[in-house]
Amino acid sequence: MITTNEREAWRSIDERPLPAWYDDAKFGIFIHWGLYSVPAWGPKRDTVNTSGEAYAEWYGSAVRRPGSQYEAFHKQVYGDRTRYEDFVAGFGAELYDPNAWASLFRDAGARYVVLTAKHHDAYCLWPSPHRWNWNSVDVGPGRDLYGELDRAVRAQGLRMGAYYSLLEWYNPLYLADPGAYARTQMVPQMRQLVETYSPSVLFMDGEWEHHSEVWDSRTFLDWLYSASPVGGEIVVNDRWGKETRGRHGGYFTTEYGEVGYGPDGVALPLKLDRKWEENRGIGTSFGYNRNETLHDYLSERELIYLIVDTVSRGGNLLLNVGPTADGRIPVIMEERLRQLGDWLRVNGEAIYGTRRWHTHGEGEAVRYTVSGDTLYVHCLRWPGRELILSAEGLPSAAEARLLGWEGSPLDYCADGARRIIKLPELNGSGDDLPCRHVPVIALQLGPQGS
Amino acid sequence: MITTNEREAWRSIDERPLPAWYDDAKFGIFIHWGLYSVPAWGPKRDTVNTSGEAYAEWYGSAVRRPGSQYEAFHKQVYGDRTRYEDFVAGFGAELYDPNAWASLFRDAGARYVVLTAKHHDAYCLWPSPHRWNWNSVDVGPGRDLYGELDRAVRAQGLRMGAYYSLLEWYNPLYLADPGAYARTQMVPQMRQLVETYSPSVLFMDGEWEHHSEVWDSRTFLDWLYSASPVGGEIVVNDRWGKETRGRHGGYFTTEYGEVGYGPDGVALPLKLDRKWEENRGIGTSFGYNRNETLHDYLSERELIYLIVDTVSRGGNLLLNVGPTADGRIPVIMEERLRQLGDWLRVNGEAIYGTRRWHTHGEGEAVRYTVSGDTLYVHCLRWPGRELILSAEGLPSAAEARLLGWEGSPLDYCADGARRIIKLPELNGSGDDLPCRHVPVIALQLGPQGS
Amino acid sequence: MITTNEREAWRSIDERPLPAWYDDAKFGIFIHWGLYSVPAWGPKRDTVNTSGEAYAEWYGSAVRRPGSQYEAFHKQVYGDRTRYEDFVAGFGAELYDPNAWASLFRDAGARYVVLTAKHHDAYCLWPSPHRWNWNSVDVGPGRDLYGELDRAVRAQGLRMGAYYSLLEWYNPLYLADPGAYARTQMVPQMRQLVETYSPSVLFMDGEWEHHSEVWDSRTFLDWLYSASPVGGEIVVNDRWGKETRGRHGGYFTTEYGEVGYGPDGVALPLKLDRKWEENRGIGTSFGYNRNETLHDYLSERELIYLIVDTVSRGGNLLLNVGPTADGRIPVIMEERLRQLGDWLRVNGEAIYGTRRWHTHGEGEAVRYTVSGDTLYVHCLRWPGRELILSAEGLPSAAEARLLGWEGSPLDYCADGARRIIKLPELNGSGDDLPCRHVPVIALQLGPQGS
Amino acid sequence: MITTNEREAWRSIDERPLPAWYDDAKFGIFIHWGLYSVPAWGPKRDTVNTSGEAYAEWYGSAVRRPGSQYEAFHKQVYGDRTRYEDFVAGFGAELYDPNAWASLFRDAGARYVVLTAKHHDAYCLWPSPHRWNWNSVDVGPGRDLYGELDRAVRAQGLRMGAYYSLLEWYNPLYLADPGAYARTQMVPQMRQLVETYSPSVLFMDGEWEHHSEVWDSRTFLDWLYSASPVGGEIVVNDRWGKETRGRHGGYFTTEYGEVGYGPDGVALPLKLDRKWEENRGIGTSFGYNRNETLHDYLSERELIYLIVDTVSRGGNLLLNVGPTADGRIPVIMEERLRQLGDWLRVNGEAIYGTRRWHTHGEGEAVRYTVSGDTLYVHCLRWPGRELILSAEGLPSAAEARLLGWEGSPLDYCADGARRIIKLPELNGSGDDLPCRHVPVIALQLGPQGS
Repeated sequence: MITTNEREAWRSIDERPLPAWYDDAKFGIFIHWGLYSVPAWGPKRDTVNTSGEAYAEWYGSAVRRPGSQYEAFHKQVYGDRTRYEDFVAGFGAELYDPNAWASLFRDAGARYVVLTAKHHDAYCLWPSPHRWNWNSVDVGPGRDLYGELDRAVRAQGLRMGAYYSLLEWYNPLYLADPGAYARTQMVPQMRQLVETYSPSVLFMDGEWEHHSEVWDSRTFLDWLYSASPVGGEIVVNDRWGKETRGRHGGYFTTEYGEVGYGPDGVALPLKLDRKWEENRGIGTSFGYNRNETLHDYLSERELIYLIVDTVSRGGNLLLNVGPTADGRIPVIMEERLRQLGDWLRVNGEAIYGTRRWHTHGEGEAVRYTVSGDTLYVHCLRWPGRELILSAEGLPSAAEARLLGWEGSPLDYCADGARRIIKLPELNGSGDDLPCRHVPVIALQLGPQGS
Repeated sequence: MITTNEREAWRSIDERPLPAWYDDAKFGIFIHWGLYSVPAWGPKRDTVNTSGEAYAEWYGSAVRRPGSQYEAFHKQVYGDRTRYEDFVAGFGAELYDPNAWASLFRDAGARYVVLTAKHHDAYCLWPSPHRWNWNSVDVGPGRDLYGELDRAVRAQGLRMGAYYSLLEWYNPLYLADPGAYARTQMVPQMRQLVETYSPSVLFMDGEWEHHSEVWDSRTFLDWLYSASPVGGEIVVNDRWGKETRGRHGGYFTTEYGEVGYGPDGVALPLKLDRKWEENRGIGTSFGYNRNETLHDYLSERELIYLIVDTVSRGGNLLLNVGPTADGRIPVIMEERLRQLGDWLRVNGEAIYGTRRWHTHGEGEAVRYTVSGDTLYVHCLRWPGRELILSAEGLPSAAEARLLGWEGSPLDYCADGARRIIKLPELNGSGDDLPCRHVPVIALQLGPQGS
Repeated sequence: MITTNEREAWRSIDERPLPAWYDDAKFGIFIHWGLYSVPAWGPKRDTVNTSGEAYAEWYGSAVRRPGSQYEAFHKQVYGDRTRYEDFVAGFGAELYDPNAWASLFRDAGARYVVLTAKHHDAYCLWPSPHRWNWNSVDVGPGRDLYGELDRAVRAQGLRMGAYYSLLEWYNPLYLADPGAYARTQMVPQMRQLVETYSPSVLFMDGEWEHHSEVWDSRTFLDWLYSASPVGGEIVVNDRWGKETRGRHGGYFTTEYGEVGYGPDGVALPLKLDRKWEENRGIGTSFGYNRNETLHDYLSERELIYLIVDTVSRGGNLLLNVGPTADGRIPVIMEERLRQLGDWLRVNGEAIYGTRRWHTHGEGEAVRYTVSGDTLYVHCLRWPGRELILSAEGLPSAAEARLLGWEGSPLDYCADGARRIIKLPELNGSGDDLPCRHVPVIALQLGPQGS
Repeated sequence: MITTNEREAWRSIDERPLPAWYDDAKFGIFIHWGLYSVPAWGPKRDTVNTSGEAYAEWYGSAVRRPGSQYEAFHKQVYGDRTRYEDFVAGFGAELYDPNAWASLFRDAGARYVVLTAKHHDAYCLWPSPHRWNWNSVDVGPGRDLYGELDRAVRAQGLRMGAYYSLLEWYNPLYLADPGAYARTQMVPQMRQLVETYSPSVLFMDGEWEHHSEVWDSRTFLDWLYSASPVGGEIVVNDRWGKETRGRHGGYFTTEYGEVGYGPDGVALPLKLDRKWEENRGIGTSFGYNRNETLHDYLSERELIYLIVDTVSRGGNLLLNVGPTADGRIPVIMEERLRQLGDWLRVNGEAIYGTRRWHTHGEGEAVRYTVSGDTLYVHCLRWPGRELILSAEGLPSAAEARLLGWEGSPLDYCADGARRIIKLPELNGSGDDLPCRHVPVIALQLGPQGS
């Protein structure tokens, strides 16, 4: 429960309108890349209890957990003497081609990109003057990984943002005195990051260990919104202190469909009154996990379902890719992104700039989105020769188009509460359909519509 | 031109009947794995003149070629001081799971597996007593990579074979005195390999630098066929000396569709009078190449075409996968193998055990294979409602089945020289087809057939 | 010239009496050990212009100086890609035995030990919470090198102290804002060091880049003398700001006999009115230099001359040893220390607790020290059968003893201004002398003495 | 007991006269350098039972002996995963200056040098074509270590020789079939070594595992003496098979004063009827041992005693130095060599070219050598004013000189069986003696002498 005091304190931040670009964008690429990309390993998802245990980017913490699969793996493969920090020597990024990445993300249909500027291990992907000798210019690749991607992404017309972990697993000053850490190390670092790169998104994380007062988050947000160079553009999430997730800040976040837990330990309901974003990997991990095989990755079909379902419920999808330590997007991930891009090239108008309709869909067959006076009907299953709809509010007459179909408009008619749409005749193989999965029918509502 | 003397000399070897299992098997998995899997790099195929230049397994040789892309890459990424041989330290195979590999190969529908026991760099994937300190037990993984896969592959009911390079790039004894090398190092090593693992296939390579007399190949083959433990079972290829490819030995080989060149430097015609095998990667390289992206790999459709076309012309397909240095089959390769396996599970009877029909097919639409009195019609393109065939020799009446289709048999009728087959009615999306690409129709020829 | 303001500002610090233990101790061991012990290389002394250029502990800075011998050596041996910081991986200290070190230092006759807790590269030999991941517990040996030696040295009855560099070559915060660095990183670190280990000596260095106001040195000294746990015991040197060397702080320092330069760039005269300490290596470097051969090291004889001459002039000797990266005192250094210890075991009473006499000696033959009413005559050359002295103030009669000689006292008589001492009869080989170099004759001044 | 057959078989080899240069040379430098110089570790001599257990060059074997100190050390310092062979990466020889070595050896007074061309680990210090990828050009330093020293040593006027181990610890062919190994690998390698470098000495070792027939030693020796390029010059030792040490071959060997054991397991008596050579380190190990401290090394005095005593008994001294992996002679060894050289510069005529007298000396005081009609009296202890001798055969009158002494000849007179020599008057400090240890008196025997 949010107390009056808490509500007052956060009011001005919570009430700031979300910059419009974000809700229109719908689809962003999340990138987890860092030292954990070197061991690049987590247990198979089906051998652990929570999705988090399979996250390869937690290697550096999990490896110190006695009895964990990580510990056993590490001991066997790298031996007792290799510290997590030593992986920096293997983080070479020698094949990193930020322009190729950005071009792929654009082809995939993404509108923004969020890179882990700093994860829980405190290693920075930019030359942070506050983290000498523990950033990607000083040790490892010798390059400003964030800055290079920032330029490439903007050149493709996409927006760029930064993931930033408040907590730092091993920093002795943080461990001994988190307030002093926040004051003398973290906030100066965050400000330098914002001032240097002007990100469009700040995706915070690692907030759960302390109250937002300890992190001094509201002060930072006040500065960010009013005095920083990105005050008008920036979008932030809801991870600013152990009491804020699903309650305060910018958009709300879900992760692998989980909304998270409030400070009272109770699972949070998804608040439909606030813009939200689902973030997850194509597979079962954020950081690249060599232990994943084909069945751990979403299929093309599942991935299209995911974006359609998310957008139909009012969310954005921040889909994660885990590059390898040498700087490649694994080909299976590239394939999925291109498959999604192929679908979006046909059906993008049913996603970008749309809003949630009054209902997200009908059972397992249909999802809706709306944009102006066009209602989009996403067919999760091929309806055969006729699609029958029964949602309230459907118009009794409409111009119906199959997106990407160059033939004639579709017949649309009302039959009592049911609305019937006739699908075109096809050759049987599916090859003549504009897209293999989830065709979309646009219903143009006339003035008499609804 | 083959002289009489040469023909005489090779007669007994050339006339040995090919063990039957091999022509029935049709589909094998080739595996290139070794030190080159550590740098795992070759130029993009479209930046070089010949397919060979893109083969990542040639890294150790190409890197010493002044002006090559390999040299430039190596210098930039590893520096002047790193020798090709030093990559052995990075060849860890820590995630190598031979049972998982073998299970995948079986699921893909392969019937035999060929692993590079020794490539041109002389590094052995088994504990060769003749190559102390330069084999996978002494340096690198510390494991008998060949032996472990051998056991796993046989446990899945598949056959196992070895690739073996006659030449050795850097061996000073080979370079100074190839005959002495062949006598004191190579032949003893080959015999120990055969005696230890009883391979079903020997895929020789690196034969082109010397005449088969220098390699003493015929003596070895005599031993292999008559005195070795695998005399009845073994199948070998045609790479036994610079004059033998496409002329002598066992089955003939093509590589990325190229038949190779005779000792006279003239491109060899594909000899349809001898069993042959196409070997190539799913992508543009045999050894794993990190530089490949999605468009370098065969698509699902192209891969199915490849096997169908190859078998329709009488060939076997030895499809190569390039594992990573840590012992994984890249997920994109796994996906392609599983897609091929899915197709073979439906259509395997049109491949395994079949033989070339009198013609391989009709244009770009149809390929034929035959088995007993069943003729298989592979539809490279979906014919729509009717398939019209016009090859000579088609029966005027036959029982026609769509493989994998649980509905009724198809109508088959003659219309003059044309034969017409009616396809079933489908829902349009292609989801109700038994396979997404290349459906196959079996024509059962009755006693009155043909 | 010291202004009145400056004098006033430093008065209380300058006037603090030096704790008595220090002037009595006379001989300490200096230890330079750190990352520079890994490359452990500097040019031969006779190929460079200043002694400083031969100091191997400057490797990390000199290697970045274009055209330096260091740069050429580094490029040739380690290659372009190895950074100085990477040497931490080779700093293993695996043979480090602090008890053996301390025992050797005691045997050598040292009374205090000073270890480089932090040198200019900022790497700390103790687990400094202000330098996470750049200290000997977090990276490299995994041990508290300072703390272990501290305990071992005290267990031998010696005093322990720390060398600490104010400047840090590469710290971006120091480079951008030295005052902020001093305030938020350096002073907190120094205080933690003092509070944790209670050192008896602080040997500061790296002061020359900024005025003591920037370093905030006086504030620290006020705290050190009055509020720290070592206020009564601690001895410090004169390196607290670019204007302080030879002018302010604790004892003055010379280095390889050089007094240093004042802030005005003028060579400083040795101030005999302030206690001073000569610090130098046994060879030509502080950090271990693999490039040194026998002729770069002081011989036994030269080393004994050095301590005798230094003490005769009122100085202490802080003799440096440079351990290897694996934690050994090179055997040639051990030998020199033991040779010095052998001499001190015989002649220690002429060194420890003594004071400068009114003159330091006579030419190249004799040095004096005094303790109470005993005057010590150090014979730099063997006088043969008679030693003739002519310094003013020598008593006309005295009891003369050859230190370590078990035979009868020596004849001492005056002959005008000359004093003549008869040496004992010896067998000729020198084997019956109590020490091989610099025998010492003690003159006991009676009440009638001088 | 040597059987008649054995005697016959070896007769021509045993009876070959030893080339004269060798007995005249008296003093050679032995060098153990190789992979073992990387860990460079053995237990302290006083913690093991036999001197051999302290030999650091046995690291690669001892580390595999369960319960050994080596195993414990290795596990602690390098971990389970580091193989002995992996040390090759640390064998850089980056500071190796063969001219400086050769110059030092000449200054030390040595007349020949023997380097471990191949030790038991089979690693070759020259580019042996029979040991590809396991020699100092292919892996490790990238230099022909033997060849470079060979040239440098000859340029100083010294002779060069090779140590060569017959056995190879890990070679699987050797282990499985030593005869085949000897025939196809070892003998060809030995011949290539001899033909390439024309060594003056072959110091064989590792012979004890097999009879000389297995090694085919006599055949090799026949070739060496009659057909090789060094037939007239070469000197070999007695290690050619498990039955030959102290019995057959060239000169006999002792090691740390131990004569070794015959094939019957009985300690061999030193055969005074054959030329012999003592080989040992300055310290307790042949390969460099970081674990040695000052007291493990011979002092200057002990070293001079060693050479004097050895030569007085008819032996040569092959004094070993153990360079570091980076190519330096440790300074303490350099110091000892220079101290020995200083002594030899004064007293060389009493060593080089001399022969054993009828008795080696008198008790602990005197050693004799003889050259033509000059008898040399080595005074192990300073005799004081008179030296009294009583050996049989001393002349009753002789011209007596103190070597290096520029004053007058010494009085020599007979007093019954005693001979009395008067030493000069000295100043007492020993500084005026021509050498600090073991002065030598030459007695010129007249025609009436003896």
